[in-house]
Amino acid sequence: MDLVIEIEPGGGEKTAAVYRALRAAIVDGRVPAGYRLPATRVLAADLGVSRGSVAGAYERLVAEGYLTARVGAGTFVAEAAPARRRAAGPAPDPLRPRPGWSLTPLPTSGEGPAPRYDFRTGIPDARLFPFDTWRRLVGAELRLRANNPGTYAEPSGHPALRAAVARYLGYARSVRATAGDVVVTNGTQHALDLIGRVLLRPGDVVAVEEPGYPPARRLFTSLGARVVGVPVDEQGLVVSALPAHCRLVYVTPSHQFPLGRVMSLARRQELLGWARKRQAAIVEDDYDSEFRFSARPLEPLCTLDRSGRVLYVGTFSKSMLPSLRTGFVLVPPGLRPAIVAARQAGDGYGQVAVQAALARFIDDGQLARHVRKAGRSYLDRHIRIVREIGRISALDVIPSAAGLHVTALLERGDPARIVMLARRSGLEIENLADYAAEGPPSRPGLVFGYGAVDPDLIEEGLARLPALIEDSQRRDGQAQQRRPAVEPEQRDHRHEREPGDHP
Amino acid sequence: MDLVIEIEPGGGEKTAAVYRALRAAIVDGRVPAGYRLPATRVLAADLGVSRGSVAGAYERLVAEGYLTARVGAGTFVAEAAPARRRAAGPAPDPLRPRPGWSLTPLPTSGEGPAPRYDFRTGIPDARLFPFDTWRRLVGAELRLRANNPGTYAEPSGHPALRAAVARYLGYARSVRATAGDVVVTNGTQHALDLIGRVLLRPGDVVAVEEPGYPPARRLFTSLGARVVGVPVDEQGLVVSALPAHCRLVYVTPSHQFPLGRVMSLARRQELLGWARKRQAAIVEDDYDSEFRFSARPLEPLCTLDRSGRVLYVGTFSKSMLPSLRTGFVLVPPGLRPAIVAARQAGDGYGQVAVQAALARFIDDGQLARHVRKAGRSYLDRHIRIVREIGRISALDVIPSAAGLHVTALLERGDPARIVMLARRSGLEIENLADYAAEGPPSRPGLVFGYGAVDPDLIEEGLARLPALIEDSQRRDGQAQQRRPAVEPEQRDHRHEREPGDHP
Repeated sequence: MDLVIEIEPGGGEKTAAVYRALRAAIVDGRVPAGYRLPATRVLAADLGVSRGSVAGAYERLVAEGYLTARVGAGTFVAEAAPARRRAAGPAPDPLRPRPGWSLTPLPTSGEGPAPRYDFRTGIPDARLFPFDTWRRLVGAELRLRANNPGTYAEPSGHPALRAAVARYLGYARSVRATAGDVVVTNGTQHALDLIGRVLLRPGDVVAVEEPGYPPARRLFTSLGARVVGVPVDEQGLVVSALPAHCRLVYVTPSHQFPLGRVMSLARRQELLGWARKRQAAIVEDDYDSEFRFSARPLEPLCTLDRSGRVLYVGTFSKSMLPSLRTGFVLVPPGLRPAIVAARQAGDGYGQVAVQAALARFIDDGQLARHVRKAGRSYLDRHIRIVREIGRISALDVIPSAAGLHVTALLERGDPARIVMLARRSGLEIENLADYAAEGPPSRPGLVFGYGAVDPDLIEEGLARLPALIEDSQRRDGQAQQRRPAVEPEQRDHRHEREPGDHP
Repeated sequence: MDLVIEIEPGGGEKTAAVYRALRAAIVDGRVPAGYRLPATRVLAADLGVSRGSVAGAYERLVAEGYLTARVGAGTFVAEAAPARRRAAGPAPDPLRPRPGWSLTPLPTSGEGPAPRYDFRTGIPDARLFPFDTWRRLVGAELRLRANNPGTYAEPSGHPALRAAVARYLGYARSVRATAGDVVVTNGTQHALDLIGRVLLRPGDVVAVEEPGYPPARRLFTSLGARVVGVPVDEQGLVVSALPAHCRLVYVTPSHQFPLGRVMSLARRQELLGWARKRQAAIVEDDYDSEFRFSARPLEPLCTLDRSGRVLYVGTFSKSMLPSLRTGFVLVPPGLRPAIVAARQAGDGYGQVAVQAALARFIDDGQLARHVRKAGRSYLDRHIRIVREIGRISALDVIPSAAGLHVTALLERGDPARIVMLARRSGLEIENLADYAAEGPPSRPGLVFGYGAVDPDLIEEGLARLPALIEDSQRRDGQAQQRRPAVEPEQRDHRHEREPGDHP
């Protein structure tokens, strides 16, 4: 039999190329055990490489046990050479996730082109961000080599950023915190993950708002928790509806996601009292309330907490950009060592240069300036969207005074069908039902994000809605039959397209 | 009773300042429910602010339910006002980690000043890194705004980096991979975390090398796994000593950590066969073998895997810098959706600008260039350290041909005491016993890292060793009594000082 191998053309170390080609031939079983290799001179001429290259490859393969050299006899493919490759195709018993693992990846808002009328939630307007300032700050930190980049940094976060976050929360959110309370994370989702690792045992009950923020549900479920949806009313989470034994409650009191309401003071007191009595933890996700359109926001729930049961989670994904991958959590003293250790065990620590630049961005007042500037633009969009929706008889806007999205209840028509029809005409809006943990919410509705939309296209885009609503109604009957029943898991996939991106 | 409040001096919005001061007085219980507040005019004069500021603060507190306004009667502290602050001090029943959570943070190599003779492991030499090139690449990516930074990117990693990693593994490690096989992580530890989340159920058995890499043990334990140490001999992990029912085996075949040996081909075949039969997963941590001092390295274990049981984990923390917080894992097809979903649920996705810059760094050949340059320096240090240690009769170097550290067995003397005495004289070395999972290893030894050490001080530092070894011997007897018995957990803490930093 003839040895037929090919080596990669062009530059590169010839010995290595010959080695790889021979090795592949052996491992793939193209040359059998005991096969006698051609003399180096012959193969070298054959491949058009130096004799030394072939000799080097032979030596290495002998050293690795693929070949055996018998003095005076030549070089042979070893009997003990690696197992032959099986017939092509998947392995007989491939690795599978553990029983109970049900998560699959969701599409992200970065995939594919943006729709023309982009009302997806959870996307801030990158066009408003001061990239030159940011690049200058990051560049300066890379020049400084923030800390010694050869050694390993603090898992709790860059000290300057922890201090800056504490100060920022003081004047922006009236939260009294010190650098010691702050643990920097890779965004909200990462904060929830650290909290869950440290607090939850498989089977523990976690309560989330219904409708609410699906990615939080997904995460807690993946950690083995039993996640229960609890209804929200005009005052926020219905505390009296919380399950009796509940380890953790996840809430968005400043700007309920997605309904947009503020949790009332009375309800906040009730929730805190409940958590004290039940010895439960409260996770407060204050994801976008930097953008306030009212003179009198309620302050974060954590400012009323006297018993150290609230973990306050914030992110710079909305106030700045998701691509910063930076958020934080205020951790009660009893949990700090555990949370920091969980971060250290989970991925070590964060991007020091980015964290240091962010500290400067905050301390120089750039963040406050950007939030003011972006906030003005968002307020303008908020007003115009509410006005446009107000003109549509079938829609009833839920009053909201903060953030990057607004929700409207639908008096008639099929929201799923409206969203589908809208998408065809370049109008991307969201179905309120897609935020429900268990079955669709009591009332149908639509959600409109306005961070991503081109301000000049707001009216033009929303003007299409009335016709779409009518259309969805007219065909409602057939549609119901035509559309296949949607499995919760599928629904999850579709709807988490953007909510999945929020933190 | 008189209302005595103080508002923060200096600039800032006066209404907010008055609001905060009043609110604090109410919440702290300094003014009782039912208390009648002074007229706005009076308090304004009292505080030296405009009457409008006080009126604004009153309005907001009324809106929030702290105050009630009775027409014609005035403004009063509400009965329903927030609960009074308890007596200072910790909460009565503070939040605690879940039962079974035992991790606490470990010190990192970035804390405190570097020792004069720095032989700590796991720290590459930042002085060799081309910072200007790197800063230029990151700056360019930030200018390009890699992707739309307002939207959310792929959890599996920046496509260009995944492709670059696949190509790099082809020529640097003879590993055949495509971009589709690569999932980018925040370093090795993060890769292990994603693997553990997806594969391990509480109680599952995980096998690790003994001695081995403590942070991997810590992580798998924190995920609820039962971690078992398996001895390593001259050929590497003793496969015959693996526990019968074992879900996952964590190994470092290219350069065993910390002993430095290469796993033999026969042992690799045995391990792969074992994993096939037991349907177990193998995690191959190839943390530092880019730095090879031999012409004929064995290729990674994954290149022999025919049944898709090996997850190959790599990191840029050693070949570049830990501060990049970037590594990767090659994932068999059956696990890809789960691993990507775990990353998405856990922290969304990584730093796009850094990942894009890293792709350029690899594709421009900068990484290969840096590895060659740094490798020459590390080889020089390796040779000199081995030579110096070779002169010390009490030490027996374990042959090793790669990486950033070397281990020597100790013929006599007390390693823990030697390390302690050395530290006092500015010489930082490590005790082999500190890498043992269960009790000290069969043979005492010392570990010498050489990424951090000043090359000019290698001989000067190691010259101190003979005296320290003698000293530790002479006092051995008393030392044994004097030193308190060291609890495993304490040992863990001490020893993971640097090993904890390796990925």
